[in-house]
Amino acid sequence: MSSEIAEVTRVVNAFSETWNRHDINAFADLFAEDAEFVNVVGLWWKGRPEIKGAHEFTHQTMFKHSRLSIQDVVARFPTPNIAIARCRWTLEGHVSPEGLALPPRNGILVNMLQQDGGTWRIIDSQNTDIIEGVVSRPQ
Amino acid sequence: MSSEIAEVTRVVNAFSETWNRHDINAFADLFAEDAEFVNVVGLWWKGRPEIKGAHEFTHQTMFKHSRLSIQDVVARFPTPNIAIARCRWTLEGHVSPEGLALPPRNGILVNMLQQDGGTWRIIDSQNTDIIEGVVSRPQ
Repeated sequence: MSSEIAEVTRVVNAFSETWNRHDINAFADLFAEDAEFVNVVGLWWKGRPEIKGAHEFTHQTMFKHSRLSIQDVVARFPTPNIAIARCRWTLEGHVSPEGLALPPRNGILVNMLQQDGGTWRIIDSQNTDIIEGVVSRPQ
Repeated sequence: MSSEIAEVTRVVNAFSETWNRHDINAFADLFAEDAEFVNVVGLWWKGRPEIKGAHEFTHQTMFKHSRLSIQDVVARFPTPNIAIARCRWTLEGHVSPEGLALPPRNGILVNMLQQDGGTWRIIDSQNTDIIEGVVSRPQ
């Protein structure tokens, strides 16, 4: 594995490691200052402060005891300093707004990363739930 | 508007123009040969032939008479030859696998594009349904 693939994979895995520690400062530090993030219901956060604030809220509530597992990180490099890294994930241990336990969920996350001064940071993320057995939605 | 923003916006708008003509050859030509595409239910297509085949199938079935409207294309350029273009969209006129009319849907699409020899093509797409009034799913 090249050092660039290893480093990009490390950053993507840090997404779940910081999530599982509920360390939102470290989570937010994975993102560039002007990064954007679209979550599984289409909320569009612009800039690291919005990304951080949204995750501080959810990790005090529905994701407080959740555990995120990332599988199968696949990275492509359209240029030497840009990476597209896609992975599948499973989330367990999350609860509804009323505090009720919810079943595990699966999804697929794309992160675009850029290297700047030797550091790879996420400049864009978009997340999509996996709905098994259908071609589109609603069906 | 710079010529680069104009050209990237043109390609993103061509996504809906070719969709609405159901011209899947022209639709597929917007993508690079090794492009990847994740749709709203997490299906992950790898390469232009898979992207084309999937859309040929849906445009003969559930999307045969559908109409896609793209709004608010916002493009960023992390490097001069790479663009991240995000837009919201509305889909109308689609049907269920049983042929029943379905209500309009809204979503958010990110396209990454790369310029090669003066031509901008989509190298990666990921699509997410917008679910109003929630922070995450299921709730």
